[in-house]
Amino acid sequence: MEINSSTTQLTELLSSNKKLLDGIILDFLPTKSSSPEIQSLYEMMRDYPSRGGKGIRGTLCLLWCELFSGAKQKALITASSLELFQNWILIHDDIEDQSDLRRGLPSLHKKYGVELSINAGDALHGKMWELLLSNCGNLGSELTLAILSEFARMLNETTEGQQIELAWTSGNDWDIREEDYALMVTKKSAWYTCISPSRLGIILSTAGHKDENLATKKHSELLKTAVEFGRSFGIAFQIIDDVLNLTADESKYGKEILGDLFEGKRTLMLIHLLNSLEGKRKTNVIESISKPRQSKTTSEMKIVFELMKSSGSIDYARKVAVNHSRQAMKLFEETVSTQSSIHPRIYHQTKSLLEYLSSRDF
Amino acid sequence: MEINSSTTQLTELLSSNKKLLDGIILDFLPTKSSSPEIQSLYEMMRDYPSRGGKGIRGTLCLLWCELFSGAKQKALITASSLELFQNWILIHDDIEDQSDLRRGLPSLHKKYGVELSINAGDALHGKMWELLLSNCGNLGSELTLAILSEFARMLNETTEGQQIELAWTSGNDWDIREEDYALMVTKKSAWYTCISPSRLGIILSTAGHKDENLATKKHSELLKTAVEFGRSFGIAFQIIDDVLNLTADESKYGKEILGDLFEGKRTLMLIHLLNSLEGKRKTNVIESISKPRQSKTTSEMKIVFELMKSSGSIDYARKVAVNHSRQAMKLFEETVSTQSSIHPRIYHQTKSLLEYLSSRDF
Repeated sequence: MEINSSTTQLTELLSSNKKLLDGIILDFLPTKSSSPEIQSLYEMMRDYPSRGGKGIRGTLCLLWCELFSGAKQKALITASSLELFQNWILIHDDIEDQSDLRRGLPSLHKKYGVELSINAGDALHGKMWELLLSNCGNLGSELTLAILSEFARMLNETTEGQQIELAWTSGNDWDIREEDYALMVTKKSAWYTCISPSRLGIILSTAGHKDENLATKKHSELLKTAVEFGRSFGIAFQIIDDVLNLTADESKYGKEILGDLFEGKRTLMLIHLLNSLEGKRKTNVIESISKPRQSKTTSEMKIVFELMKSSGSIDYARKVAVNHSRQAMKLFEETVSTQSSIHPRIYHQTKSLLEYLSSRDF
Repeated sequence: MEINSSTTQLTELLSSNKKLLDGIILDFLPTKSSSPEIQSLYEMMRDYPSRGGKGIRGTLCLLWCELFSGAKQKALITASSLELFQNWILIHDDIEDQSDLRRGLPSLHKKYGVELSINAGDALHGKMWELLLSNCGNLGSELTLAILSEFARMLNETTEGQQIELAWTSGNDWDIREEDYALMVTKKSAWYTCISPSRLGIILSTAGHKDENLATKKHSELLKTAVEFGRSFGIAFQIIDDVLNLTADESKYGKEILGDLFEGKRTLMLIHLLNSLEGKRKTNVIESISKPRQSKTTSEMKIVFELMKSSGSIDYARKVAVNHSRQAMKLFEETVSTQSSIHPRIYHQTKSLLEYLSSRDF
């Protein structure tokens, strides 16, 4: 009962924050132009931000800020920018991964073509920096610049992770060790899902403190530790996301059924499966999974999926996610316990969210 | 004789500045990674910045800074970032415009594929903001933030201009008035080629002044005027760039012969040609220019080019460029004459560069 009520509370928190943050984004983005072409660009830019989503990254940032007695109000622009980051990068990701669906609707390039969508992604990317610059009035120059630097770091990591994954696909590389996978997923997913949102919340919690320098110094150890547990939570999150891609209903998940198999995505499950197989059986799986997307059939992909189940690859991935999550939670609890004046309700909410990252079923 | 020697001096100035600015970029970009995939990303990121170029935008920024007694040294990071802006946006532009060549070599997506190149463009884009953030030590927070804001504005304008042009192409729209063309080219080209480089130089000239606020206020009128003459110079520059695309040698220009016709680019020459033709003759030109790139033949494109010449479209475009350039030069001279302590050598160099923009033959 307690778990259910805590899940409901978390769902409500995520949903109300997401509404708030999307509202900020949509108020900020331009709406009307006398040029019909520019008007159309504005509609493209508002498309993904209007599709909703879970708002995990923005909420995580807000919670970390409040956890250390920061004001939620001062973190809203930054939390919105995290959601905006996801929006623009997903426009480009969907082109790079040839994904046809995004949140249950056709992806942007399916609606408007690749050329216009690359440009719309760039336009939205620019708006992210512009939104972050508007922090200045509320936070002052120093904190605004510190937040911009964290975003630059986050973008470096994310594009490096994306490169690793894309290079595996384009090079038809299947000789991937679990540690290669961990590096890819840390960069591609953990940084922007968990590490940077947490670090940004910590940075923002110092806003308005009498001596911001002192506050920042006090938190500098914390910022380092956030990389550690953020990595583990982020890896767990991505593994579960990949498990859900294969096991969840299309209607619930908003993406194609077995989409990751059609995409040839190097998931922990697929790496585990390939490591469990030998000889002809391994070659067969590599052969069918390496085909171009349009040559793959659903029945063929279902065979690979069944093999994953019978080889224990899905259970293995879930287990690895749980281990990462437990390890991260231990570090999180230890770290927070050393800090004074932790807000108990916020502590509880942050814990729920971090638990949810690695055990969610939606 | 004087003109020749002034051209030589300008070429030397551009070339030495470009070397300096590219050096800063290449020193700043990462080189080595233990991950072979990330290593490959770094090579992609360093590719366009290693190909040289004219360095017009960076030099313009440096000159404007020095013109108002600013220190060149303080403007180097920003001028490099302008060159970096061009590098990352050209990666995406080349995909959007399906350009096969960039500075005489295969474009990035021809070498590495579209997917990896979109991501490399994003990675390089992120590095531009990171480089701009490194201004802080040398310029302080306020100026650093003012420069970041100008870059955000410049990116808004550039992506809007790119959208207009791409929408014309994808919508097979040929009903374009000269004022539509002027709006497109102001946004797509004038802002990042001339308006923002000038405005950034003006902003940077206030660095280190005892009262930066006062200095900025003094220059605020100038920043507005820079939009006006920057627009006219920028339009002239783009028109001449398009003229050169059709009339210059491939070896000299580094792009495909008649590349803009293969691309179906809406240049002032093509707009003028279509406005000069009627009935079947107009329909024929639209038909051959609307075909997909791979269905176009060189002989067919040459026919359109000959028609442009016989209809006076190229001369017309040159004339419009000269008019824009004269008007802009008048405003430039009037504006600068009201300012005290203008450096005579720098004034001469700035004038040469602005003249070159609209009358260059390389």
